[in-house]
Parts: sequence; C-alpha cells; structure tokens
Amino acid sequence: MRPLHAVIMAGGSGTRFWPASRAARPKQFLPLADGKPLIQATVDRLSGLCDPAHLWIVTNPLQARALPKVLPGFPKEQIIVEPEARDTAPCVALAVATIAERDPDALMAVLPADHVIEPLHEFHRMLRRGLDIAQDDQTLVTFGIEPTFPATGYGYVECGGPLDDKQPAATRCKRFREKPDRATAEQFLAAGTFLWNSGIFVWSVRGITRAIAAGHPGLAACTEKMRAAIARNNRSLVTRTFKQTPKTSVDYAVMEKAPSVAVVRATVRWDDVGSFPALASVGAHDDAHNVSLLANGASQINFQSQQNIVYAEGKRTVALFGVQGLVVVAVGDAVLVCPKDKAADLKALVEHVRAQGRTDLL
Amino acid sequence: MRPLHAVIMAGGSGTRFWPASRAARPKQFLPLADGKPLIQATVDRLSGLCDPAHLWIVTNPLQARALPKVLPGFPKEQIIVEPEARDTAPCVALAVATIAERDPDALMAVLPADHVIEPLHEFHRMLRRGLDIAQDDQTLVTFGIEPTFPATGYGYVECGGPLDDKQPAATRCKRFREKPDRATAEQFLAAGTFLWNSGIFVWSVRGITRAIAAGHPGLAACTEKMRAAIARNNRSLVTRTFKQTPKTSVDYAVMEKAPSVAVVRATVRWDDVGSFPALASVGAHDDAHNVSLLANGASQINFQSQQNIVYAEGKRTVALFGVQGLVVVAVGDAVLVCPKDKAADLKALVEHVRAQGRTDLL
Repeated sequence: MRPLHAVIMAGGSGTRFWPASRAARPKQFLPLADGKPLIQATVDRLSGLCDPAHLWIVTNPLQARALPKVLPGFPKEQIIVEPEARDTAPCVALAVATIAERDPDALMAVLPADHVIEPLHEFHRMLRRGLDIAQDDQTLVTFGIEPTFPATGYGYVECGGPLDDKQPAATRCKRFREKPDRATAEQFLAAGTFLWNSGIFVWSVRGITRAIAAGHPGLAACTEKMRAAIARNNRSLVTRTFKQTPKTSVDYAVMEKAPSVAVVRATVRWDDVGSFPALASVGAHDDAHNVSLLANGASQINFQSQQNIVYAEGKRTVALFGVQGLVVVAVGDAVLVCPKDKAADLKALVEHVRAQGRTDLL
Repeated sequence: MRPLHAVIMAGGSGTRFWPASRAARPKQFLPLADGKPLIQATVDRLSGLCDPAHLWIVTNPLQARALPKVLPGFPKEQIIVEPEARDTAPCVALAVATIAERDPDALMAVLPADHVIEPLHEFHRMLRRGLDIAQDDQTLVTFGIEPTFPATGYGYVECGGPLDDKQPAATRCKRFREKPDRATAEQFLAAGTFLWNSGIFVWSVRGITRAIAAGHPGLAACTEKMRAAIARNNRSLVTRTFKQTPKTSVDYAVMEKAPSVAVVRATVRWDDVGSFPALASVGAHDDAHNVSLLANGASQINFQSQQNIVYAEGKRTVALFGVQGLVVVAVGDAVLVCPKDKAADLKALVEHVRAQGRTDLL
C-alpha cells in the first residue's frame, strides 16, 4: 500500500471571528469542536488513516509560533512555514515539494484546518474512495458537498459524467466556480449538478506534479526548485523560490487545467463554521433560542433575551438582559457586540479597527 | 467657631450598576467622578470645610474592608461600621453617638457618598448657609434640589414659609414626601413648592439629639446607650444596641416630627448618577451620541453604532458594531448587555442572577 501524507492547510487571517480570532489565533485555533480547537479535531480526524509522522501543517510564521500551545506535542519538523502569504497554489507547491522529496510515491490529502466534519467513519470512507481514484497518478480528486441553500460564500464544482463503472459516487469535474453572486448560486442550486467545493483534495505526488506542470510551468519550475532546495536543506533558497511563485489559487492554476479531475460526493456532515451565526451548528442552545459557545470557565446568564449568540472564553460571565438577535463576544482583552446580521461583515469592523490604529487588537 | 464633623453615608447594595458595582464595590467606589471614585470626590469636596480628623464614613462591614483600596490613607478609626443593614435612622443615631462622645458641641453634616456635586465653591457656600442655621441647636437643615422633571426615583421636600429675614434662601420645611408615583410627581413639579431631597443634612449634635428624643424616644435611648458604650470602648454593647434600634428612616422617625426643619435651596449642580443611562452626565460623548465611561486602561471602538452607553474598566476594549441604544458593561469577570430602557430595572436581573445561584457575581 502506498504511503499517505496529509497536509492541513492552516492559514486564515482571523477576521470572521474577531475578536475571538486574531492574526496569531485564527479560527482553527478556536475551541469550536466540542471545546477542542478545530485544528486539533482535524488532526484527530486523520488518526487511523494516516501515519502521524506523515501529517503536515502548512501555516504562516505567526501562527506557527502559536501552534505548540494549541497542538502540544505536534512535531515541529512537520510544520511547513509559508515564508509569506501568497495564495493556495504556492502553498500546495511547497507541500508537494516537501513530500515529494521524502516520499515521491506518496498519495496526498490536502485539508482545511478549520472545518467541522462528521461522522468519522464516513469521512474515512470518503477519503479512501478518493485515494483509490488518485492511485492512477493522474486524477486529482476533489470532494463536493451537496448544497442546501444558494450559498454565496462558497466555491462550487460542477459535476460532469460518471468517472467509470468502478466509482459510482464519483463524477468527472466539469468546472470550478468561484464564490457566485446570489442569482448564480440559485441557478447552481436549481441545476442540481453543482456541489460546494469542500476544499479537500486528494491526489498522488506524481499526479499533482504532472498537473502543475500542465497547468502552470512556472509554478512547476518553482516546485522542483523548492524540492531540490529542501533536499539540500537550503532554507533560504526555499524562501527565495517561494517568493517567486505566482500568486494564484490551486483551483485556477492547476485544477481547472488538469486533464483528469474527479468529484467525490461527500457523505459527511460538513460545516465550515464561517462566522458567529454558524455557531448555531456547534454551540449549546437554550429554550429561548440563544446559542452559546463557552470555553475555559466562561459562563452565561440569559434573562428576558432571545435568539442571541454568545461566545466567551476564560473565567468570565456574559449576562444578557432584554436583548434579541445579538452576537456578544468576550475573549481576552476584547468585547464585541453586534447584531447577527452584521456578523458576516466583521471584516469591515476589523478594517475600521485597523484604520483606528488599533493593530494591537488584530 | 464650633467644630464641624462630616458624616459620609456609604451604604448601597450595588445593584443599579451591576456588574460594575457589586456587594463589596458599591456605586460610590466606581470611578464616576472624572475617573475618581465618587466617595473619594465626596471626601475631597469636604476639604477646606471640615478638619480631615472630623471626617467620618459610615458603611457596612463588607464595604469597610474594601475601603482602604479605594481611599488609601483614610484613617481606619474614622470608619464607622454598621453592625448590620437597618435603615437611615439607626445609621444617623450611630454617627450622632460617635460624634457626641468626642465633641458634644459639634455641628454635623451628613452626606451621601455617591453623588456628583458641582461647583465646589457653591457647595461650600450652601453648606455654610445650612451650618449658620443649625447654630441655634434646634433647627435641622435639609438641602433641596430644584426639580427639572417629575422624577419618581427621588424623595421630595415641600417648602413652607420663609425661615427668617436673615436667611432669604431658606424656607421652613412643610413635609417630607417619599418617592411619588408619576402623577404625584407631576403635581409636585406643577406646584413649584417641592424640591428633590438631596439626602444632605446639617444640624448640631445637640439639635439632632433633641429631635431624636422628640421624634422617637426609643431611638433616643439607643443613641445615648451607644454613646456611653463608645465612651467605654465597649464595641459589643454598641453592636447589641444598634441591633435594637428601630428599622426606620431618619426622614420618617426624626425629620418629619422635628419642631424646626429648614430647607436650603441648593445652588449646585447635583446628580445622583442613579443608573447606567445617567452616565450621560458624567461620561464622554462622541458624534454618534455614544456615551462612554472608561477607566484604568479601558478603550472603546464604535462603528456604525449610535446612542449606546459603554462602561468598561481595566485593560480591555469594547467594540460596538451596528448597534443602537444599548448599555454594554465590561468589568472584571463580567459583561452585561441590555437595552438602555432595561438599565433602570437592573435589580430584576440581579435577582435573577441570585436565583441562578450565582452569588459569586453579586
């Protein structure tokens, strides 16, 4: 059996859960998985599927420094630090270079660090199905989520014809579509052939290397140069080369141009917990439809209050009295109060905070 | 010139500013006087009028223990500890007993610890006017505030005829009226002869002793017994006697029955800062009519938010995004969010907190 390397993509700017999330404490560090950090849950989820020595986390320098506190015991040498924020294609290239150098025959799974995925056995089954397909050293596999509403916050994949008789749950991928506007999202939903792009990919090192070469020769050259630099342990060359990679997404530069891309229909409950209102799916509920996520000793008192969302960490109490439809966050040195319908727009607040010169809060 | 003793009444249950105020940290401990605790401002306000050795603070055991942190350097022997919570008559009796033992010829001023009063020179002038009147060892002087709206949260004094030709700004006091209902308050306002009861009193030790004897012989006996016990430094007898005093207010038991009570019309700006919305008179304002009171390193970010009230202490930031008309409090281990119109009813929330068994928060 060919070895599997799993790459957890853990970037993220930490704006959608501000002030719970900060630059050095992105969403995947928040205890949103039954009190556990999402990234911890992502690592745990790969247990039994992937040798712990074949687990990689790609992240930025700031978050790499903070990682040992969140994932104590995770081997430092399995943290791949992106020299600077570019896009997903350079990130994948660096991961491919790292794994190719150690294990050129490997299969690879690439997964976001900050999603909630259940149940475990279905997740494993779904990934194994993708790995079967990727064995051909050619097909890139993506996992599509059955859309339940015309989401404008997710990318979509359009399903084509069946892959082959052996893989009834997989189809050819016709197209990748970036986050659509509302009308387009509604068309996608009506068409029935579009799935949400889960951001989970499976391929072999050889398959992705070929696809990068076909899709973006410049990126392929950088990938090979980084692999060679890693072989010689020449970190500064890795950094210099990374900074020469094209700022582009793996969807656009590689997946869309790849000769063989398959979509496996996900059979898991998937939630990207994209903003505070999404805590409804992972938090506790009371009779008045208040949702709370309380960690590390936080508590809450609701009185004559309905349909609020409270996120608190640390030994503190949030008391709501006579309020409706609010998001109230109390973490560390910051408190946020906003209506639920503003919570999707926290980026605007974060920009305001930055404009006020309060980078200490970001 | 006869010595003046000033007695600062510092009780209060700390519910109207919860969670900024707590049982051990009542309103007068909050930094509502330009960042200074109200009780500190009250002490400072008496400087130049009263010998510092003649300043007394009457409070409960819990707050007496917390006082040195708020008023460092205030002499412990000038703190009069009420053995238990009764009403204002026992409190005044204990203060009278304490001062009578040391200085039977003294004049006395009794003042709440938790009001904002400005300007200083008018306050001194007003008090001196009262002291002049109290020199007769008979007249009890109260200070009335010109009402600006039909308040139902204050007691009233009804003014009678002029006291005498020497005191044009003072009138005889016709009646004390407890907090009225709205209709009655409107009648008071229309009549023009009613003033808000400021809770500030001036009298001589002899004058108040006589008035207590006339109004409530039982209380007079307790007062004399406490004075004698203080003379012998018999604290346990003071405590036992205090616990035998009638649970009644000084207005009802003494003032209303006294043969001579004068009302001096206050010429100061007076504010009892009764609840969070009252911070409008002592806090900072921004262009969007947000009021903030920030102490000890607290800061605030308002974005697309109007007419809110923020109270925060300690190194923390309260961010408001897209909200209107809220009170947001962040102090110590607690955060409160409620609409402004609920802020006057915080007592109900505090009772709910108690009912939830969260006495740790009170």
